[in-house]
Amino acid sequence: MHDSEFSPALITQAVARLAGKIVTTPMLSSPMLDAALGCRVLLKAESLQRTGSFKFRGALNKLLALPEDVRALGVVAFSSGNHGHAVAAAAAQVGCAAVIVLPRSAPAIKIESCRWWGAETVLYDPETEDRQAIGQHLAESRGMTIVPPFDDHDVIAGQATCGVEFAAQCGAADITPDVIIAPCSGGGLSSGVFAAMHPRYPAIETVFAEPQGSEKMAATLAKGAPQSRPAGHVTILDGLSGPHAGLRPSRLLKACGARGLAVSDAQTLRAMALAFRTVKLVLEPAGAAALAAVLQHPAQFQGRTVAVVCSGANVDSRTFVQALQQDEHP
Amino acid sequence: MHDSEFSPALITQAVARLAGKIVTTPMLSSPMLDAALGCRVLLKAESLQRTGSFKFRGALNKLLALPEDVRALGVVAFSSGNHGHAVAAAAAQVGCAAVIVLPRSAPAIKIESCRWWGAETVLYDPETEDRQAIGQHLAESRGMTIVPPFDDHDVIAGQATCGVEFAAQCGAADITPDVIIAPCSGGGLSSGVFAAMHPRYPAIETVFAEPQGSEKMAATLAKGAPQSRPAGHVTILDGLSGPHAGLRPSRLLKACGARGLAVSDAQTLRAMALAFRTVKLVLEPAGAAALAAVLQHPAQFQGRTVAVVCSGANVDSRTFVQALQQDEHP
Repeated sequence: MHDSEFSPALITQAVARLAGKIVTTPMLSSPMLDAALGCRVLLKAESLQRTGSFKFRGALNKLLALPEDVRALGVVAFSSGNHGHAVAAAAAQVGCAAVIVLPRSAPAIKIESCRWWGAETVLYDPETEDRQAIGQHLAESRGMTIVPPFDDHDVIAGQATCGVEFAAQCGAADITPDVIIAPCSGGGLSSGVFAAMHPRYPAIETVFAEPQGSEKMAATLAKGAPQSRPAGHVTILDGLSGPHAGLRPSRLLKACGARGLAVSDAQTLRAMALAFRTVKLVLEPAGAAALAAVLQHPAQFQGRTVAVVCSGANVDSRTFVQALQQDEHP
Repeated sequence: MHDSEFSPALITQAVARLAGKIVTTPMLSSPMLDAALGCRVLLKAESLQRTGSFKFRGALNKLLALPEDVRALGVVAFSSGNHGHAVAAAAAQVGCAAVIVLPRSAPAIKIESCRWWGAETVLYDPETEDRQAIGQHLAESRGMTIVPPFDDHDVIAGQATCGVEFAAQCGAADITPDVIIAPCSGGGLSSGVFAAMHPRYPAIETVFAEPQGSEKMAATLAKGAPQSRPAGHVTILDGLSGPHAGLRPSRLLKACGARGLAVSDAQTLRAMALAFRTVKLVLEPAGAAALAAVLQHPAQFQGRTVAVVCSGANVDSRTFVQALQQDEHP
């Protein structure tokens, strides 16, 4: 496979392509947060990225990496979540067509978000139709390019720019993190961020956070082949509930010696409330998963300098209210 | 009065003093927010500043501007809100003592916040005691310096650094704002920010947002002398409910031709929910007041480029839930 090796040059190219087109999200900290967690925490507020999640970086990098004539034919994505929203917004930004393939059961607001950006939406019945086949047909019949959510080196390189910024922000503050934690579903974000930070901090420990009971990437690393989500697993971490872990991300995670930590729904809600109170961030459950890992496994982080990626903020108000209210009445 | 004139040099000094000691808060925007408001909005997310509000800038600048031997004796502030919290945190950062004078009726959490930073707290009965006298006594008996919340040129110059950053961020994005809006109580933030931005954008319109029914600064500008809050006025905008408008801020506001706009509690709650949904910011009511001004007076901003200061995020979860729930069920 010609793309079987990930090159650091892809990250350098992504940084150049995205310059001025994305938000340089701030690194935040709070002595009160540190006191609550028993360690020094640096938060990368990627929740403030365009479209409310890191997904915009990878989507835009992929679109900009396409040859102009290919891009002009448009792109396709399957996703009812942050990836679909990000591809729709990135396509609007570069001025190409986008088709987002969503399950008919997706919440109306998610379908509307994609349409808002001018994307065409194709709804399918997940019980009887195969989204891959629908996308493949669109790609072939209309010459559109599929933008994969994570198992693609340009997408990973786009997410890696979050790590490049984070490392630069640590450097500017003269802080060397002992460990970096990022949420993980398919693995595009965590593998990209770790690939960007590991060379700068060779001693850094790399940790990915997964929903307890659905630790696809940990299983993938253990078995050496991409694993799927256990059927019937229900979690508040909707952003980390994709069907399977990615092959290319798993290779990168393995290369930097990453390990997984499981987080519960309860600790995720606590982490959302803690971020609200201390660093004043809106986080969606998946966006709070890395912080939840610190809450849930305090002994592992005691006294250390912990870099935490807060990856997204697309949460409905009902879930956010739930997080705030359980915090009031623990 | 030797300090009757505000000099732009004070802002330059404040920028140098605060470099690396405060958060460079991001400028955020959202096409969805623009569409909802009918204008192009640039938000300065000062809610992400240390201690959750712009007050940290002014407090830290004031402390750093004191001669070292004076600073070593400590500082006093009267405030149950963001100013007290900011002075306590700034004193902890520079390593001097701080006494915060709070009404005995202040919420326990606000008293605890000041103590958390190591500040001494002095509680008084607002019915029978005069906080000014208590502070004056502390200042005289212990040689401490009073840090005024707004009517002080070093405090104003500290808040002005928010405007310096905002102008630089507009410049980097190659955007010229038509109008800048900031929330206003005593006037320290709005006067400082406008003083910083007006010279760079001489054609900019400067607008301050006040609670409807308690427009102290508008009245001050109209009457030519500091006016007080109407007795018995109740508003959700606790951060804009100080007893009176400031003299020095009013002079600066007058000099740049600023005008006031009133905002209601209802539009403030809508603005908080809108910021949550579109730019993913936690805003306290006062922090959302400038955005509420755009919501409440849409005709004035139609089609324009509007720079909006989102000044703080210290909101209890109950009030935040109220904002999110009224948004669901308008």
